Amino acid sequence: MNDTLGIALIGCGTVGGGVARVLLAHADRVTQRAGRPLELRRVVVRDPSKSRDPLIPLDIISTDIHAAINDPGVHVVVELIGGTGLAKRVVLDALAAGKHVVTANKALLADAGAEVFEAARRADRTVCFEAAVAGGVPVIRALGESLAANQVTAIQAILNGTSNFILTAMAEGGKSYADALAEAQKLGYAEADPTLDVDGSDAAHKLAILAQIAFGVAAKPHEIARQGIDTIEAIDIRFANELGYTIKLLAEAWTGGHSHSGNGAKLSRSGAVPAEPTVALHVAPVLLRHTDLLAQVRGAYNAVLVYGDVVGETLYQGPGAGQMPTASSVVADLIDLGVGRAQRTFAAAKLWSREDRGFTVEPPERVRSRFYLRLQVVDRPGVLADVTRILADEEISISSLVQHEAEEEGGGPVPLVVVTHYASTGRFRKALDRITRLPTTAAAPVFFSMGD
Amino acid sequence: MNDTLGIALIGCGTVGGGVARVLLAHADRVTQRAGRPLELRRVVVRDPSKSRDPLIPLDIISTDIHAAINDPGVHVVVELIGGTGLAKRVVLDALAAGKHVVTANKALLADAGAEVFEAARRADRTVCFEAAVAGGVPVIRALGESLAANQVTAIQAILNGTSNFILTAMAEGGKSYADALAEAQKLGYAEADPTLDVDGSDAAHKLAILAQIAFGVAAKPHEIARQGIDTIEAIDIRFANELGYTIKLLAEAWTGGHSHSGNGAKLSRSGAVPAEPTVALHVAPVLLRHTDLLAQVRGAYNAVLVYGDVVGETLYQGPGAGQMPTASSVVADLIDLGVGRAQRTFAAAKLWSREDRGFTVEPPERVRSRFYLRLQVVDRPGVLADVTRILADEEISISSLVQHEAEEEGGGPVPLVVVTHYASTGRFRKALDRITRLPTTAAAPVFFSMGD
Repeated sequence: MNDTLGIALIGCGTVGGGVARVLLAHADRVTQRAGRPLELRRVVVRDPSKSRDPLIPLDIISTDIHAAINDPGVHVVVELIGGTGLAKRVVLDALAAGKHVVTANKALLADAGAEVFEAARRADRTVCFEAAVAGGVPVIRALGESLAANQVTAIQAILNGTSNFILTAMAEGGKSYADALAEAQKLGYAEADPTLDVDGSDAAHKLAILAQIAFGVAAKPHEIARQGIDTIEAIDIRFANELGYTIKLLAEAWTGGHSHSGNGAKLSRSGAVPAEPTVALHVAPVLLRHTDLLAQVRGAYNAVLVYGDVVGETLYQGPGAGQMPTASSVVADLIDLGVGRAQRTFAAAKLWSREDRGFTVEPPERVRSRFYLRLQVVDRPGVLADVTRILADEEISISSLVQHEAEEEGGGPVPLVVVTHYASTGRFRKALDRITRLPTTAAAPVFFSMGD
Repeated sequence: MNDTLGIALIGCGTVGGGVARVLLAHADRVTQRAGRPLELRRVVVRDPSKSRDPLIPLDIISTDIHAAINDPGVHVVVELIGGTGLAKRVVLDALAAGKHVVTANKALLADAGAEVFEAARRADRTVCFEAAVAGGVPVIRALGESLAANQVTAIQAILNGTSNFILTAMAEGGKSYADALAEAQKLGYAEADPTLDVDGSDAAHKLAILAQIAFGVAAKPHEIARQGIDTIEAIDIRFANELGYTIKLLAEAWTGGHSHSGNGAKLSRSGAVPAEPTVALHVAPVLLRHTDLLAQVRGAYNAVLVYGDVVGETLYQGPGAGQMPTASSVVADLIDLGVGRAQRTFAAAKLWSREDRGFTVEPPERVRSRFYLRLQVVDRPGVLADVTRILADEEISISSLVQHEAEEEGGGPVPLVVVTHYASTGRFRKALDRITRLPTTAAAPVFFSMGD
């Protein structure tokens, strides 16, 4: 086992550069931790003329993926291309060539996990992916190894740093959504096209991976109910604050009955083993009490709160993206392969396999939650009677209601906020449709889940 | 590898009962996770007539440690006796008999880690101890595996749930130390004799273990500078709050120069690799800014903030004690042994070995910190001049100073709070001695470190 482990990096952008730096600048440390040398033998890039870390020997840089994968001196292929096209080809070819794979590619695993893992099992090789979820936060190991004595009953997670940065800037700086987004872009926390971050897609990919580890379900990202942060206005942040809540974009999974966050239907956070083998999944803005652990996660950080039936709740928090945090997780996987741990974990975990742990994904409309609903209504008699009648028709009771006096004279639209008791998403949506069609409803209603 | 792993529990009190319950009530789950059955074959107790979990077959309960350890059907001995007497004998005998050991015994590892690990290496067996630090929070795996790409540059941790419960009750309930302690005892968070929890000994044991993993230093707990929470009064909580701080009992390790929490001397939290291979260790009440992650950890929870030179800061938080959280970590170790991961980790990590990672422990008097100092002084002219002169003599500058008007007329002692800039602990102690001897100093000064 003291043989050198040869490594090929496919893709050497931000994260790849970080991985190369750790392997080259801290070779002694990595060798000591892995019990054998980890040697960077191939770096495959699109444009070899681009200037790179001077520690990378020029003669290992090339554009030839095929040669890198088939180099007998390469034992591990690190896929850092991203996406589900070329990246998938590289991963499958690497496995077929008898190489282990380390990847940070959440989209690939969420979309094609079964295919990739089946190929790995056929080739008797290992796929590692700590960096694919929550960057530098070791949540894959936490779920798969540290909490192995538990059946996870719920996960509540901040998995998109961009969205959390924007929401923090709105809550603490009183900024509008547009201004907060612009600030995030200026500081490099948001892309020029931020769609996949702010519409919940990125978090849904990551949640699909966590749900596979925790529950054995293979939910496709597009099957996960998803709501982004782009409908949140400054006024919602203020109303939430007035009610004692902070709005966070959460990726959530919870088991048992069909309720959000441990209500009467009993489950998830009670520490009891789920009575019903169903798991609800969604990505959505959620109102959390100011004192909740996740309400206090600020800026671009990620945090994952896991409820296990033995341990109770544990929290994992840290940088969810960025060059060196992500490199930290990629190199941890390489060290695990060097030690021989990763191979054992891979064989034992049977991820994306036919092994059924009995969980099925709950249809979104059956998921129960409390809801925050903000309407813009025309300020005239009977409005409240209409809205409350519609909710009553769907057997949705009201927990609290806030309507302030109109700021201006003259009966322009005013905001009306209703917080409901638990209701199924299906019935809430029905009520919402009817409320939207009321002649007194002046704008599309805005709604979010309540975290309690 | 599909052979059954036979387990003997030595000690079946609170934690042992929890371990037995998980292994027996969730046998299918544990088998699935470990890839082989884990069978509880022996339970050794002092008093077999005591009533226990009805799931434990009566015929595996005995008082015979020797028979359990030497049973050829037993492959892993779980030591849950505690202490460093009989427990050490059991662990060494088990290793000599060719058994792996899982233990939750922080005192044993902190005091005799070298002896135990050397014995394990001689016997080619593995020792696992996730439960020994922070109960259900998987910080041993985080430091040893997840962060393996990093040199840890600092650790800041709440490792004693009892102390944190008391400090939370003082801060949020306005309670005195005595009342908060009484409440902790009533709720089962503090023992009848709480000395080892509130004087910092318990946290020092745990810090010694973390320091071995992160820095390879073998500090004995009694060599770790230690200050408890029993000198904290309600007035300190109030003054700290007024200055923008929360007081927490922290176990801290930081590398590099000799300063507390990333000051000018540059290091630890900067993400840079430490320039000087020294590590400072202490357990002490520390004033943290209200917005610091650890300032927000409430009640009996534990939390560990780790600074790595690659990843930056990551946080691990959860229940630091209790039956099922601790059992969760013990069973995770058993599953790791079943999978074969633990053996790889043990061999690679070389803990408590002669392998030198170059760090030495900084002498406490050279450690630099800012200090909070509360004096009770006689309210008369010249007092402030004397105190500030003494600090100036030791080249300690003052960052802020709070003296409120005396509540009563008549010149009785009044509190005076001084917050210093960075100073070496040695010089601060010298100044403190002189201040204590001033005729105007009416009571023993109280001081804590500042977290920034």
